[in-house]
Amino acid sequence: MKIRIGIMGYGNLGRGVEYALAQNPDMELTGIFTRRDPQSIKPVTPGAKVYAAQDAEDMEADIDVMILCGGSATDLPTQTAQYAKLFNVVDSFDTHANIGAHYAQVNEAAKEAGRVGIISVGWDPGMFSLNRLYAEAILPDGADYTFWGRGVSQGHSDAIRRIKGVVDARQYTVPVADAVEAVLRGEHPELSTRQKHTRECYVVAEEGADLARIENEIKTMPNYFADYDTTVHFISLEELKRDHAGIPHGGRVIRTGKTGENGEHGHVISYELKLDSNPEFTAGVLVAFARAAYRMSLRGESGCRTAFDIAPALLSPREPAWLREHLL
Amino acid sequence: MKIRIGIMGYGNLGRGVEYALAQNPDMELTGIFTRRDPQSIKPVTPGAKVYAAQDAEDMEADIDVMILCGGSATDLPTQTAQYAKLFNVVDSFDTHANIGAHYAQVNEAAKEAGRVGIISVGWDPGMFSLNRLYAEAILPDGADYTFWGRGVSQGHSDAIRRIKGVVDARQYTVPVADAVEAVLRGEHPELSTRQKHTRECYVVAEEGADLARIENEIKTMPNYFADYDTTVHFISLEELKRDHAGIPHGGRVIRTGKTGENGEHGHVISYELKLDSNPEFTAGVLVAFARAAYRMSLRGESGCRTAFDIAPALLSPREPAWLREHLL
Repeated sequence: MKIRIGIMGYGNLGRGVEYALAQNPDMELTGIFTRRDPQSIKPVTPGAKVYAAQDAEDMEADIDVMILCGGSATDLPTQTAQYAKLFNVVDSFDTHANIGAHYAQVNEAAKEAGRVGIISVGWDPGMFSLNRLYAEAILPDGADYTFWGRGVSQGHSDAIRRIKGVVDARQYTVPVADAVEAVLRGEHPELSTRQKHTRECYVVAEEGADLARIENEIKTMPNYFADYDTTVHFISLEELKRDHAGIPHGGRVIRTGKTGENGEHGHVISYELKLDSNPEFTAGVLVAFARAAYRMSLRGESGCRTAFDIAPALLSPREPAWLREHLL
Repeated sequence: MKIRIGIMGYGNLGRGVEYALAQNPDMELTGIFTRRDPQSIKPVTPGAKVYAAQDAEDMEADIDVMILCGGSATDLPTQTAQYAKLFNVVDSFDTHANIGAHYAQVNEAAKEAGRVGIISVGWDPGMFSLNRLYAEAILPDGADYTFWGRGVSQGHSDAIRRIKGVVDARQYTVPVADAVEAVLRGEHPELSTRQKHTRECYVVAEEGADLARIENEIKTMPNYFADYDTTVHFISLEELKRDHAGIPHGGRVIRTGKTGENGEHGHVISYELKLDSNPEFTAGVLVAFARAAYRMSLRGESGCRTAFDIAPALLSPREPAWLREHLL
């Protein structure tokens, strides 16, 4: 019997989950749930059913795991706990400052309902988090560094779009190569925000807009750009659509540490991702953890979990003996 | 109360575990066990006790986890199951073809005794295995590649030392840079053994030995060298001691995969290690998994486990809420 999956929310991430399910033959797509008019949604999967979001409440018996594909700003803070009362759930909640509160809320709902809720899986938080944990446990005398990019930051692109006179924009976060190299050489540098990343902005302005003012507003924007070396390129809408349509991302987690009688031996652990599509990769992680949620639920577990709490073998469709023979 | 650790075997790996324990304040070294004369052992830790190996049999109540630091060829195939009858145990068994049999044997002994036995933890098998599993689960439509080095292969160095006329030798396994780059570019190349690694040999010969014969015997040695591009450098014993005293190693696990409606998006996951000391890094992994063995045993678990079966949080001395706040 296949694991029956629901997709709640059908933006880039939801569609990524739909693609990922097609690569995982032990799973099947039971339905896509949307707050838009279900008639307006065209799923990629032949014969896939689209439901109104509120229909999910009557489908408790039909879905093993609901994968929540909404945003961390407004959707997931309420949705994850809400649906954990009905289903095993998985989300990619990434508002770091609120993970503690989100965990507590989902844990209470999932425990009460006897469901498993896995939160904050994707690549950061998610795979990067796992690498930070493993590396610190192995090399306790050390330091870790996270670099993001080169990749599109949706939040920073949105911030530029809110400036008067801006039609559209795409912002790339770029790690400073010299800083990455210094860390990889084990130099253990102290790096300021400005020394770790630069920000590249591609901006389409309204005709006749004051470009100098727009550039200045971007570069001086607190939190988003003021602490970074930022470059602004004005381009046409055609160029934006032609050259910046993708949603690539990636980055690295590096830990350097010392061992030996007097710390005489240095070690470098580096985990790097280069992703053509941020949402599709995140979807791949969500689907693997959905498998784990289903299995943990079958064992009678309940409550909230993160990637830290889940034995790796639970993510794989393979048998344990196969994993030991082929991947160990 | 600290986790009480025993070290069985006091070579490079055992000493590495001793160093690692000094970096992990939740653990203490109960004793070092050796088949040599205990009086001949000089531990690094002030006041550390050294016992004859057979004394371990009377210390069931004194040790929470015995870390087995013997070799995979002759020690661990008998030791791990033997000591799993008395203690929770951890080993770095790495004879790949025999992992299935080793698992079965340790599982039976540990289950019967109500102990936890964790096998094959180190970096490969160990951290590389974990990265192969996670990456395949996330990107099922893809391929993985493992490159080792640049680093010293003990087995290949030993093979050279057995040649007539050789005084000492050090063999470095070196990944072919072009092959690594092609994989990282997502080209998904088919690579022969020769295309993935080269072998560099530094050899000290007896005075008057036939160097051409030694070089030929190395380069044509089946399994070890015949399938590789091998270079042989004859050096003096002084040069060997001065320039090749360390035991560095490392390598990479890379998985490349496709996602999207028609596999139009490529992704690269790369995990890389650069280690000044192979045994000290391996020791760091063993000690983190010893913590997990202790915790799993406290929960009443028993039997054999690999890195695949262990929730990552069990490796860390940190509280779960701290991990969520700082590393997630």
